Amino acid sequence: MADDKALTPRGQDFSSWYNEVVLRAELAEHSPVRGSMVIRPWGYTLWENMQRALDDMFKATGHQNAYFPLLIPLSFIAREAEHVEGFAKEMALVTHTRVVPDGQGGLVPDPESKLEEPLVIRPTSETIIYDAYSRWVQSYRDLPILINQWANVMRWEMRTRLFLRTAEFLWQEGHTAHATNEEAEQEAQTILGVYRTFMEEWMAMPVITGRKSDSERFPGADHTYALEALMQDNRALQAGTSHNLGQNFARQFDLKFQAESGDWEYAWNTSWGVSTRLVGGLVMTHGDDSGIVLPPKLAPVQVVITPIWKTDEQQAVVLEKAESVANVLRQENIRVHVDARENMSPGAKYYDWERKGVPLRMEIGPRDVAKQQLVLVRRVVPEGGDRKEFLSETMALSVIPERLREIQVGLLAVARRRQEANTFRLTEYGPFKKMVAERGGFYFAGWCGAVSCEDKVKEETKATIRVLPDASFRSDPPPERCLVCDGAARHEAVWARAY
Amino acid sequence: MADDKALTPRGQDFSSWYNEVVLRAELAEHSPVRGSMVIRPWGYTLWENMQRALDDMFKATGHQNAYFPLLIPLSFIAREAEHVEGFAKEMALVTHTRVVPDGQGGLVPDPESKLEEPLVIRPTSETIIYDAYSRWVQSYRDLPILINQWANVMRWEMRTRLFLRTAEFLWQEGHTAHATNEEAEQEAQTILGVYRTFMEEWMAMPVITGRKSDSERFPGADHTYALEALMQDNRALQAGTSHNLGQNFARQFDLKFQAESGDWEYAWNTSWGVSTRLVGGLVMTHGDDSGIVLPPKLAPVQVVITPIWKTDEQQAVVLEKAESVANVLRQENIRVHVDARENMSPGAKYYDWERKGVPLRMEIGPRDVAKQQLVLVRRVVPEGGDRKEFLSETMALSVIPERLREIQVGLLAVARRRQEANTFRLTEYGPFKKMVAERGGFYFAGWCGAVSCEDKVKEETKATIRVLPDASFRSDPPPERCLVCDGAARHEAVWARAY
Repeated sequence: MADDKALTPRGQDFSSWYNEVVLRAELAEHSPVRGSMVIRPWGYTLWENMQRALDDMFKATGHQNAYFPLLIPLSFIAREAEHVEGFAKEMALVTHTRVVPDGQGGLVPDPESKLEEPLVIRPTSETIIYDAYSRWVQSYRDLPILINQWANVMRWEMRTRLFLRTAEFLWQEGHTAHATNEEAEQEAQTILGVYRTFMEEWMAMPVITGRKSDSERFPGADHTYALEALMQDNRALQAGTSHNLGQNFARQFDLKFQAESGDWEYAWNTSWGVSTRLVGGLVMTHGDDSGIVLPPKLAPVQVVITPIWKTDEQQAVVLEKAESVANVLRQENIRVHVDARENMSPGAKYYDWERKGVPLRMEIGPRDVAKQQLVLVRRVVPEGGDRKEFLSETMALSVIPERLREIQVGLLAVARRRQEANTFRLTEYGPFKKMVAERGGFYFAGWCGAVSCEDKVKEETKATIRVLPDASFRSDPPPERCLVCDGAARHEAVWARAY
Repeated sequence: MADDKALTPRGQDFSSWYNEVVLRAELAEHSPVRGSMVIRPWGYTLWENMQRALDDMFKATGHQNAYFPLLIPLSFIAREAEHVEGFAKEMALVTHTRVVPDGQGGLVPDPESKLEEPLVIRPTSETIIYDAYSRWVQSYRDLPILINQWANVMRWEMRTRLFLRTAEFLWQEGHTAHATNEEAEQEAQTILGVYRTFMEEWMAMPVITGRKSDSERFPGADHTYALEALMQDNRALQAGTSHNLGQNFARQFDLKFQAESGDWEYAWNTSWGVSTRLVGGLVMTHGDDSGIVLPPKLAPVQVVITPIWKTDEQQAVVLEKAESVANVLRQENIRVHVDARENMSPGAKYYDWERKGVPLRMEIGPRDVAKQQLVLVRRVVPEGGDRKEFLSETMALSVIPERLREIQVGLLAVARRRQEANTFRLTEYGPFKKMVAERGGFYFAGWCGAVSCEDKVKEETKATIRVLPDASFRSDPPPERCLVCDGAARHEAVWARAY
C-alpha cells in the first residue's frame, strides 16, 4: 500500500513532506468542497488538547465564552472601510434559502427564496459582536467585556494547504470592550503573553513577538501584535495575532458608554485569535523524516504500549501485563493506549505510532513479563543519549512522567537552537537579498519606516516585515541604518519569507 | 429599568414567560440576522457544561471527535431521496464568493464569482461524512468507525424561538459505521441510553424513550429513536434522537467493506444528536415565576456568595471572609462566585442570581462573621422544608456538597411527579380529543398502525405520536384497540402536542 512508502525527506521537498506527513498521520485530508478539509480524529484530538489548554488560560485571565451567529449581514461588514476592503475578495455569500427541481433531474436555488440582502459566512466576527455589545453596554460599570468564542470561519482562498490555509478553519476569537485605550492596550498585550506561553510551553515552539507594520495590520485595527515562528524550511509562520482596534469598530456600531464623568464615550476594543493553523505549525516545527513529533503536553496519546506475542498463551500474558501497566499510568493522568491489534506485526505498529508522533513507546514481550522489565523507546533520539531504555517495571513506571517532561523541554530547546541558528542580523541589503532568497530564516535589521522600502524588499525577495520586535527580542545596540535605503533607522524589523 | 419588572407568570402566558426568562437570565438574545441568536456567556457556559458531560460519556463509550466541512455540495444532499425531500425547503445556499461595488455606494455579489454548483450550509452531515468514511474503509478491520462532531448547523426556519427553533443552532452529531445491522442497532440503543442518563441525571429532566412512527422518522433513516420530555405547559419536547440509518446512505456514498468472507458489503450507519435546544428544555422543565432554575450539576455557578456591608470597614471584613469561604469550596471543586459588586444592594443581587437560577446562595454579613455563622438560601423551597438555613460556618461548609446533591435529586423528583400527573392512559377518542386540546400532557393509547389514524389525530388536535414507547414505559396490560379507529392495536403510542 502507498501508505508504507517512506516519506519524501524534508531536505528534498519540504512541501511534499508536509502534505504526506499530515495525510499519513491521519491528521486531516482534503474534502470534496474545494478548500475545505476534514480534520480526522488524531488531528482533532490534538486541536482539542490545544483548546483545553488555551481555554483554561483565557478563563484564568477573566474571559468567558459565548457564541455569535455564523451569518453576518453584508451591510455590517461594509461599515468599517478597511475591514470590507480586506475581506471583500474572499467572502462566501448566502443568497438563497430553498432549492427546487431544475426540470432536468437536478436541483437549483429557488429564485423566489432569494434573500433581500446577502449574508456573509463570518470571515471574522468583529462586526456582529460589537453590534451585540452596543446593546449590552450602557455604563462604565458594564465594562470591561471579556469574551471569547470557539468557532468556524471562512475565507475563500484560491490556493489552500491543509491546516495552513483553508477556506474554512476553526479558531478562537476573543473580543473585548474597555473604558480606556490604556486598558485595551493592556488586554492586547496580556493575550500576546498568553499566546506566547502556550506556544512555548505547550507547543514547544519558540516565537518572536512584536507589532506589525501598517501594511500588515489587521483591516480595521490601530495596532496588530503578532507571534512569528520559524519553520524547518526557514519560512516564518504567523502563529497568532492580537489587535488593539481602538475605537474604529465602536464608532461604526455605536458602542458607547456613559463614563463616570457622565459623558458618553466610545468603547475601546481588542480582538485576538489563533486557529487550527497551529496544528500545521506544530508539524513543521518538530516533524522529522519519519512523521510528526508531538510534544507530550499536547499528544493525544503520550505513551503507547505495544504488547508482543507469538502464541495465544503469550498473548494473554502480555495483554494482561499491558493493561495493568496502563492502569497504573492512567492513575497518574498519563494518556496511554494499549495497541492490542491482531493481524499486525509489532514492527508495523512501531512504524504507525512513529508516524503519528507519540512521544514514548513501551514494548512488552513474554520475556519482559518474566523478567519484570519493560522497554521504553522515545520517538526522538535525545541529545547525547539513546532512544531505548531497558528498565525494571517499577523503575519504568516511576520514570515515565519525568521522561515526558524531559521530552517536552528537549523539543523546545532543539527548536530554539534551530531558530537561533537561522536568525541573522545584517546591515547590508546585498547579502540579505541573497540569503533570504537562498536559505530563508529570520533577518533582524534596521528600517526607516517607509512603505517604499518595505515594498521593495517584498518585490525583490518575497520577504515581508514579520514584526517590529518587542523589547526583549531587540538587538543591543539597535541598528542605526535602514537595511534597504541606508536612511536613519526608525525601527528594528524582522524580515522573513512567510507562509 | 424594564429588567426589574416581574416576569409574566407561567400560568398566564407560558410563551411570554419563556422569552422573558431567557432574555433576563442573559442566556441568549435575537440577532440582527433573522432566525439566528446570540448565546450569551451565562447560556453558553451552561451549554459548555452540558458538552463536557456528554463528551465524557461519548468517549467512555469509545467515540472520538472529528470535524467535517461546513459546506456540502448540493449534489451530495440530493443523492438520498428522502433526505433531500426533508431538507430542500430550509437550506442556506452559498452561491458567490466575492463582492463588488454596485455603483450606488453599496455592495453586491460579484457575478463573476458565481459557483458552478451551489454549496449548502450543513443542515446535518450524513452525506459529507459518509463520503469521507467511504475513503477510510476497506476492510471489516476498519470497522466500526465511532465518531462525533460538535458543530453549528443551519435550517432556514420561518418561525423561530430562542434555543427551541433557530435557523442556526449548535449541536453534536454522532456518525458511526458498522459491519452488521445488529451492531448498528446496538449502537443506536447505546446512545439512546447515554442520552437518557444525561437528561435524567444531569438535567434532572425525565424522558420517555421509544421509536418514532414512519411519518416522524428522520429523512433517510430505517428507524428513529427519540427521547421526549414534558414541559410545564404540558407540551412535549423532542430532546434527542438516535437513528439506525441501515444501508441507505452507504449505498448512495459507496461506503463498502470487504467482509471476513471476502465479499464486499455495504456498511451500516447510525447518526444521533442533541442540540442547544436542551437549554430551552431545561428552562421549561424547572423554571418558575422568578426565573430559571438550574440543576447543580450543570449550573455555571453552584454557590453564589453575597457579602453584605454598610461601612468600608465591614466591607473589608465580609469580603475577606467571603473569599476565604469561596476558596474552601473551590478546593472541593464547587463552582462558586463571590458577588462583590458595589453600587448594588444585596436585594438586587439576590434577585439577579435567582433570575439566573443559581442553586444556592450564601449570605455573609458583619454579624455572621462575628458569630462565625453563614446563611444558606436555596433557589427553590425544598419539599417540607425551608429555603433558608442559619448554620455555623463549619457546618455550612461541610453541608454544601450534600445540599447540592439534594437539590439535584429533588428537581428530578418534582419533574417526574409533574410528568406522571400529566400522563394519561385513555381508550376513547372523544375524551382524548378534548383533554389533549384543553390541558395537554402525554397520552398513552393503542394505535392500529395506520397513517390515516395518525393524520386524523394531527388534523383534529395538532397532537402527534411522539414515540412508540420502549418496553419499560409500556402499559401493562397493553392497550387492545386503536384510540382512533377502534381497530386492533398493533402498538402502544404516546401522543402529545409538541414543540
